[in-house]
Amino acid sequence: MKGILLVSHSQKITDGLKEMIEEMVSESSPVRILSLGGTEDQRLGTSAMKILDGIYACKDCEDIFIFCDIGSAIMSAEVAIEMLEEPIKEKVSLVDAPLIEGAFAAAIQASIGDSKENIFLELSKI
Amino acid sequence: MKGILLVSHSQKITDGLKEMIEEMVSESSPVRILSLGGTEDQRLGTSAMKILDGIYACKDCEDIFIFCDIGSAIMSAEVAIEMLEEPIKEKVSLVDAPLIEGAFAAAIQASIGDSKENIFLELSKI
Repeated sequence: MKGILLVSHSQKITDGLKEMIEEMVSESSPVRILSLGGTEDQRLGTSAMKILDGIYACKDCEDIFIFCDIGSAIMSAEVAIEMLEEPIKEKVSLVDAPLIEGAFAAAIQASIGDSKENIFLELSKI
Repeated sequence: MKGILLVSHSQKITDGLKEMIEEMVSESSPVRILSLGGTEDQRLGTSAMKILDGIYACKDCEDIFIFCDIGSAIMSAEVAIEMLEEPIKEKVSLVDAPLIEGAFAAAIQASIGDSKENIFLELSKI
């Protein structure tokens, strides 16, 4: 199972992206999508604690990919990762790819059971 | 005035992105953001007619930029552009950039009155 965490200032964006991806991959696919956009009280913004909770919700996954859109979304993800300890920390990749296009490509590859290395190879083509 | 058209399979994504951009640029900025995600009946998908209506809603703009996410969103935008006639057709650019990151960068530049050429220069850095 692979975890794909979606981080944006807007919860609408990550909710919509999760729906869009889940329409493309079957329910039995080895991929879990988490919508982590917005603050804890649903305003525009990001929350390192929300991202941290998302990472722990994927602790049974062998790999956890975090996709962010802009600026402080990336910073919040970095703060969350800094708060982790091993062994979960080494499972987490903060991916340098566009949020929608990257998460979509990664989820498709993960849904067919592709390896972390092949997922990154696919992402390098975006 | 510049028009920025947001196209995705998900209306939640383009609604959220419009909100996120409008929080960053002042109301008096010379930029108009249109959320054109989803089908005409609010399902996941895209609609060339919705995009065409969006382009005509920006006919008073000197430049119109269309940002899409994946696959058939781009195809629907191409179909809409094909249906245009001059002089509006030459105002329209289908931008090869990631939806969120591209539209955000373009809107910020447009909001400070930057030229089409400078907006594309900024987009080339993404």
